[in-house]
Amino acid sequence: MYIGIDLGGTNIAAGIVDENGNIICSKSVPTESERPTEEIVRDMAELSKQLIAESGTEHEEIKGIGIGCPGTIDFEKGEVVYSNNIPMAHFPLAEHFKKYLNLPVKVDNDANCAALGEYTVNGGGADCFLFITLGTGVGGGLILNGKIFRGFNGAAIEAGHITLISGGEKCTCGKEGCWEAYASVTALIRDTRRAMEQYPESMMNTIAERDGKVSGRTAFEAAKNGDEAGQKIVEQYARYIADGIVSCENFIQPEIISIGGGISREGDYLLNPVRDYVSANGFNKFMPKSRIVTAKLFNDAGIIGAAMLVK
Amino acid sequence: MYIGIDLGGTNIAAGIVDENGNIICSKSVPTESERPTEEIVRDMAELSKQLIAESGTEHEEIKGIGIGCPGTIDFEKGEVVYSNNIPMAHFPLAEHFKKYLNLPVKVDNDANCAALGEYTVNGGGADCFLFITLGTGVGGGLILNGKIFRGFNGAAIEAGHITLISGGEKCTCGKEGCWEAYASVTALIRDTRRAMEQYPESMMNTIAERDGKVSGRTAFEAAKNGDEAGQKIVEQYARYIADGIVSCENFIQPEIISIGGGISREGDYLLNPVRDYVSANGFNKFMPKSRIVTAKLFNDAGIIGAAMLVK
Repeated sequence: MYIGIDLGGTNIAAGIVDENGNIICSKSVPTESERPTEEIVRDMAELSKQLIAESGTEHEEIKGIGIGCPGTIDFEKGEVVYSNNIPMAHFPLAEHFKKYLNLPVKVDNDANCAALGEYTVNGGGADCFLFITLGTGVGGGLILNGKIFRGFNGAAIEAGHITLISGGEKCTCGKEGCWEAYASVTALIRDTRRAMEQYPESMMNTIAERDGKVSGRTAFEAAKNGDEAGQKIVEQYARYIADGIVSCENFIQPEIISIGGGISREGDYLLNPVRDYVSANGFNKFMPKSRIVTAKLFNDAGIIGAAMLVK
Repeated sequence: MYIGIDLGGTNIAAGIVDENGNIICSKSVPTESERPTEEIVRDMAELSKQLIAESGTEHEEIKGIGIGCPGTIDFEKGEVVYSNNIPMAHFPLAEHFKKYLNLPVKVDNDANCAALGEYTVNGGGADCFLFITLGTGVGGGLILNGKIFRGFNGAAIEAGHITLISGGEKCTCGKEGCWEAYASVTALIRDTRRAMEQYPESMMNTIAERDGKVSGRTAFEAAKNGDEAGQKIVEQYARYIADGIVSCENFIQPEIISIGGGISREGDYLLNPVRDYVSANGFNKFMPKSRIVTAKLFNDAGIIGAAMLVK
């Protein structure tokens, strides 16, 4: 058994996970990311102890603890090199954690952990498995032969920051035209707002007024109800996602491309046009093709993947 | 010792290569790609026999023959699944070759071979080595832990067909906006022609008239002589190259990115602005960065890499 901790900007979620990636029990507490990091670490350890106690697990049965954290992580050292969401720089997270709970501790990037979690449960042992998550940003993780691929420096993969439109929309990373600046839910909301202004008669305006906000679902709901402007936004969004996926596919030819993040709950309504575009535009015309699937674990992926770091 | 054969659309180039990737001797003959494939195979074997005889090598010293071929290759089967340049479809190249010269034969994509050649001689043992070649198209190969990375289906990597400008220039592959449609020498010539029309007073027109053609060098020569339109084209070309390299770097974080193809002879004049852009725009700000270098083997890379397939 392992403990997996998903350290997010809003919540710390932790779970006891078995060898096969099943969550035995889980709990979460607010991160309150602005307080001193030491307090966050103490709460992570406290949460782990509670899980051990409440589940009736013996301390000896827990073989280690894995932590998924946003930002740049030095996996070898267990150090958070830099994180923006939970302010840390060159913070030896594994070392600090062990002061409260002395077990083997591994730390990795949260998207890498989510990829490993999704791979463990739904990867079917694929040699080359790519996980892409569409959320506030676009993240991803690549699992090669069952292991997280980190590049030579540990900073791979940042799938959201491949170029989609050179010189295009400004991305949060500072570069112009990143995939994330088009395929994230943040970008979808931006494009929805723009279309709402351009087409004041669009149903998107009524939906947003009813909900009191524009969300990633606004255009989808309008589109499904026959709204032309909404359909245009959804089509364009699918095309942005698809053109980035074609890049990934043409580059590394993964057996499975798993799409996660809240917007993936739109399922085939979103993914079928993506699949059609990728199938028509992928370079590979003669060999077996990548399968594009929706991720299934949602928030559990991070906990499971973090736990699998220590397996 | 190994024999490496670089089967190109114009020439068949072959060489005897030692364990360390040194070419002992080499020869080439025209491909004449329109004739029956069987004749091409026979000539490849004939060339190999001549190399063995003329170099005074014993037949037993040759441990195998590697062939680099454009197109989609099934490495496991030694089959050319599809090649456009040298018309072949589902052609069992290794099997046919052995009829003329019975030695172990391996076949792989020509860009993969060039990557392996460049890695063998100039890769310094990097765990993650990316080779990009800028020519008629944009090709590439990825060497992970000393081995060619082929994806799950053998079709990786097609670096030229990652998206650079979604919905942009039509690529030869059928998709719009591929990196190749901007960063290949073919694209550079197209953009040079367009600028020559737009700026009839540009020095590029004089240079092209003198040379009797527009080439990849036209804009570079004009730029180096202070021609503003030429400088604009070179700057734009460097930016296209750089924005694709940022994609590759952000995705897989290679230790070395080696740039080959004839245009790489422009050296630092081309690569310094590329390096500046990548350094300023790469996502990774905290870990060691990829080194961008010019490839050094040029046409020999394909022969050496093909030979290394059988090592």
